[in-house]
Amino acid sequence: MLALVARMTATSPLILGVDLGGTKILTAVTTPEGKMLSRDHSVTPASGGPEAVILAIVESSQRCLKQAGMTVKDVDAVGMGSPGLANSETGVVYISPNLPGWSNVPLRDILQARLERPVFLINDAKAAALGECRFGSGRGAVNFVYVTLSTGIGGGIIIGGRVYVGAGGLAGEIGHMTIDQDGPSCQCGSTGCWEVLGSGTALAREAKAVVRRTGNQAMLDIAGGDIEKITAQTVQAAAVKGDDDARGLISQTAHYTGVGLANLINIFNPERIVIGGGLSNMGDMLLKPAFHTAGERAFKQAFDAVSFALAGLGRNSGVLGAAEYARQRLGQRGRPAGAEWAA
Amino acid sequence: MLALVARMTATSPLILGVDLGGTKILTAVTTPEGKMLSRDHSVTPASGGPEAVILAIVESSQRCLKQAGMTVKDVDAVGMGSPGLANSETGVVYISPNLPGWSNVPLRDILQARLERPVFLINDAKAAALGECRFGSGRGAVNFVYVTLSTGIGGGIIIGGRVYVGAGGLAGEIGHMTIDQDGPSCQCGSTGCWEVLGSGTALAREAKAVVRRTGNQAMLDIAGGDIEKITAQTVQAAAVKGDDDARGLISQTAHYTGVGLANLINIFNPERIVIGGGLSNMGDMLLKPAFHTAGERAFKQAFDAVSFALAGLGRNSGVLGAAEYARQRLGQRGRPAGAEWAA
Repeated sequence: MLALVARMTATSPLILGVDLGGTKILTAVTTPEGKMLSRDHSVTPASGGPEAVILAIVESSQRCLKQAGMTVKDVDAVGMGSPGLANSETGVVYISPNLPGWSNVPLRDILQARLERPVFLINDAKAAALGECRFGSGRGAVNFVYVTLSTGIGGGIIIGGRVYVGAGGLAGEIGHMTIDQDGPSCQCGSTGCWEVLGSGTALAREAKAVVRRTGNQAMLDIAGGDIEKITAQTVQAAAVKGDDDARGLISQTAHYTGVGLANLINIFNPERIVIGGGLSNMGDMLLKPAFHTAGERAFKQAFDAVSFALAGLGRNSGVLGAAEYARQRLGQRGRPAGAEWAA
Repeated sequence: MLALVARMTATSPLILGVDLGGTKILTAVTTPEGKMLSRDHSVTPASGGPEAVILAIVESSQRCLKQAGMTVKDVDAVGMGSPGLANSETGVVYISPNLPGWSNVPLRDILQARLERPVFLINDAKAAALGECRFGSGRGAVNFVYVTLSTGIGGGIIIGGRVYVGAGGLAGEIGHMTIDQDGPSCQCGSTGCWEVLGSGTALAREAKAVVRRTGNQAMLDIAGGDIEKITAQTVQAAAVKGDDDARGLISQTAHYTGVGLANLINIFNPERIVIGGGLSNMGDMLLKPAFHTAGERAFKQAFDAVSFALAGLGRNSGVLGAAEYARQRLGQRGRPAGAEWAA
């Protein structure tokens, strides 16, 4: 009945969104207005490799559909958000640093065979960008950039209300923009990337180095006396308590954030930049000095034209954005013939 | 008669293109196929300030129209390519480093009043990008980036066959992407920009420093014994003769070029990158090591997806691109009512 009502009120297709992460899988049946008719949350069996993870996606999808009183035939497509390098055209996940064993996995085709629906694959940060653009803090902005400051730094570029994926679906790797050409080595193979300098992982790494060097007690106490347990949150908590080392570390991260943002402003002249990811929870402590640095470095006219906003959809930006991506792609090619996707 | 034939065979508007540079003004009456029915070339009276330069643009336009046997009423619009920060929406040139006295000049409105035709303003590097995309080495590419390596470093981003201008027409300032966050100060106010490290101006600056330090005779001889006369071409000539210092300098410029290109590849995942500007005339000596560096730093899949090409339109990319920009904008808003632009 719920399904029937939803379909009757929907002005365009219902889509099953999937947000695959290194630690969790989120699925939702979504309407064109960004409403979630149902939602399922489960743990990613990452250590089981691609086969275990794909099975978990299928099971979560089925639970989610059942929760909405539907079968897979009630949704018109599946929007699949995946971490790592995902090619939207071929449907292949080349590599995903947080998912062991993922190398050239044809995720789209496997899911299409299992779910018997058209599947559209997109990188998770791009999905989040589209979610924020359509339903969150990017609403109303035609050209905007989404930046996620987290264990890594990723993003999505929205141009004319659509996500820009580039020639092979790989565009938007803004975290792997070199900002210090002789800086430290990054896991991507380059050096001095924004990510290796300004991510949450980088902050934790630098904090550990400071504690080793100075024996800083504030951070060590918060981490329960174990240097290895120091995280970005540890640094944040110590900074809130007024610890100078922790404040200095955040100040450094803010500097890199500002440099990265200035580059995005000079390249894209966006009307809005939406910032998400765990580090953004630091709020003003991180972002105020970061915006100041961006203002010092970017062209004044371009800096004045941009407004900054925090991501507004929380953990749902990815799943809503993945669904929206499928909706847009479906709109581009027209509704597929029923027979094409029949069981 | 020429005008009449051209209008009869044209499938869409004739446009007067203008390419304003720090040293020359180029105007051309162009067809939608990129043919130039006439072309005028004159010296920019830069030292006379905006008023003298604008007068020179108007005079060149009139000579160009006359050469094609036309009056201004035979063209549907004017595409105006301008150096510096140019806002395509407001039609204002904020600042142009190579044009003394240019600050917030409402170039579009002034030209519209003088030429009595709709004028569309665009930055010169973006115009060149569009010219190369439509008629030159970018033909067939839907998503591509144009890079001009010259006294400065600029560029244009083409997405879906159209130039991306951003919220205020300022997008694409790729030369002011920081690639060395604690590098030297750039004239834009930031530090470590690609331009201040890898431009022709930077190469000449570093070459002078080397000659001062080492007394390098090869470069000094080519410059006629005057250190101040050393340019990027001096370094090129000395490198061709086998001078190790000159080769080292070009090698350094190639490194920065590679870092900048890698950033563009990771951000845009373009199918093609077209390279123009004076430095690109060095050819393999500069570009081969630059592409190698880009390949080491960019994501493999994105690097493999891109093809590099040299700009193919020579000095005409800007004037053809400025005209094409006006053509696209005119197409977007429909043909303006005749009365609106009547004398």
